[in-house]
Amino acid sequence: MSAQPPVPPHRCGGEFTLIEWIRRRVGSHPRLEVGIGDDAAVLCWPEPERMLVAVDMLVEGVHFDLQQATPEQVGRKALAVNLSDIAAMAGRPVAAVVSLALPRGQDEELGQRLHEGLVGLAEATDVALAGGDTTATDGPLVLSVTVIGAPLPGGPVLRSGARPGDRLLVTGCLGQSRHRHHLEFTPRLAEAGALLDSGGLHALIDISDGLAADLYHVLAESGVGARLRAEDIPLREPEPGREHSPDGRTALAHAISDGEDFELLAAVEPGAAAELIAAPPFATPLADIGEIVEGNSAELLMPDGRIVPLPPLGYEHQLD
Amino acid sequence: MSAQPPVPPHRCGGEFTLIEWIRRRVGSHPRLEVGIGDDAAVLCWPEPERMLVAVDMLVEGVHFDLQQATPEQVGRKALAVNLSDIAAMAGRPVAAVVSLALPRGQDEELGQRLHEGLVGLAEATDVALAGGDTTATDGPLVLSVTVIGAPLPGGPVLRSGARPGDRLLVTGCLGQSRHRHHLEFTPRLAEAGALLDSGGLHALIDISDGLAADLYHVLAESGVGARLRAEDIPLREPEPGREHSPDGRTALAHAISDGEDFELLAAVEPGAAAELIAAPPFATPLADIGEIVEGNSAELLMPDGRIVPLPPLGYEHQLD
Repeated sequence: MSAQPPVPPHRCGGEFTLIEWIRRRVGSHPRLEVGIGDDAAVLCWPEPERMLVAVDMLVEGVHFDLQQATPEQVGRKALAVNLSDIAAMAGRPVAAVVSLALPRGQDEELGQRLHEGLVGLAEATDVALAGGDTTATDGPLVLSVTVIGAPLPGGPVLRSGARPGDRLLVTGCLGQSRHRHHLEFTPRLAEAGALLDSGGLHALIDISDGLAADLYHVLAESGVGARLRAEDIPLREPEPGREHSPDGRTALAHAISDGEDFELLAAVEPGAAAELIAAPPFATPLADIGEIVEGNSAELLMPDGRIVPLPPLGYEHQLD
Repeated sequence: MSAQPPVPPHRCGGEFTLIEWIRRRVGSHPRLEVGIGDDAAVLCWPEPERMLVAVDMLVEGVHFDLQQATPEQVGRKALAVNLSDIAAMAGRPVAAVVSLALPRGQDEELGQRLHEGLVGLAEATDVALAGGDTTATDGPLVLSVTVIGAPLPGGPVLRSGARPGDRLLVTGCLGQSRHRHHLEFTPRLAEAGALLDSGGLHALIDISDGLAADLYHVLAESGVGARLRAEDIPLREPEPGREHSPDGRTALAHAISDGEDFELLAAVEPGAAAELIAAPPFATPLADIGEIVEGNSAELLMPDGRIVPLPPLGYEHQLD
């Protein structure tokens, strides 16, 4: 009957020392009544009666490679992807908890460096790091971050509110994940707030799966279709001839089908959209790339006048 | 510069189908305005101005073994350990999010069975399963569960409130983890509420690391010492002669040093403690095992009248 080790299996690999280091590094936060060191964290929550919760798990060898990214970048990204989700709800992040499985044999420095990146972004965005769990693993490094937030006044904004006639706006430039952008992106929290302040924000999503895939999430949830103009999709490096990139795909194909841009895609009422484009309330680029129409699918107006269907998962074949 | 796959790496292994299955299995909950399917969950939060957050990560080969435990038991345990943490704050769980790394090559059934166990306990404890993240891994199965809760009226109760003269009460029987208890335990949510209702609850912790280790967490946070009576520590099977178990350790040694009992250890004002023991407000056994004293360490009164020091991490040598 003795199936498990009788000593607690999650106390190993210098966890207590790492936790002490994290506890000191994180310090205090005005929202955090009890942080690391009790059975659960106690947060002050003088907020509206709705709460946002997002969670993302990153696995070494699947989402990152420690030969290509520093531990600080990985820790930062684990928080940043969740902040992007909170932005995509028109919300404000308040607190985060982190769980971490560290490969056996790794020294404590790896855990510290992961937290350095994560805590740095938490401080920059005023997120209270409320607690966590650290364990050993015989497999790859795994981080899971949960972020709790509150809707901004007038929020949350869901994927389901797009209406025919809405303009489709996108922040930043797309197709960037192949340029290490996914390790360095800034979650579009301020931009989401400014879009909400326009008064015409109907639907919002962050582009994590790719423009086409995430557009289809909005279309499916809203029960609408869309028409995009290829010429207006913001590319990282505007290439007049749209030369093929080293892997043979055009910059437009990357912009439409690559994941991990972490920009915002918004459906905005036409009047508010025109005002936003005429006088953008932030320095991040903002582009009008098309409109919401009746229907349930998306099509793309090509520079040569062709109208081609845009499938949910990338567009390589028609474009290349 | 192309460090990462340009397609979103976390969409693999039939994740969408599993998510659809989970979405249907979880269903709706009155607290859940937006559940699985948007960028973040939206929860109704008409609660006091404090929130509890607990997180625990379970790793295959470290915390469980799928040859010894069913996937349903593992999924249930991943939630149960967090509910135990919420109970240990004198709190009420409200919602949970789950992240899951499934070994490549595993069929969807494993993910479904893990969620069956987890959702079953969520339903039994009225916890809204608000969302999650599912990914593939080249390593062992990893589950991370975050639970959000609210303090009960008069809570939260921390580890830091114990005072000299307090009685030390413990629920249930200790030393059970070797009897598969860690896969089947009931989080002591109702018992924590009843202890709080006594009006004399000063400090509370759940016994996850072992009685001695967790007692020392209370002592360190409260700045006090303790004296326990060995004869009053509730053992799973009261053995008059305290025969050695197959591994050569006594039942008392198991009760003091084994982890994963997930019972409550409470420091209670003497009058309230006497009333609780005289007329326990719940069916779960409740025992008075000693008292809080001045100092910073714990000692144990043995049946033969010896007083021996109780170190933080188990007691095998002095007892066997």
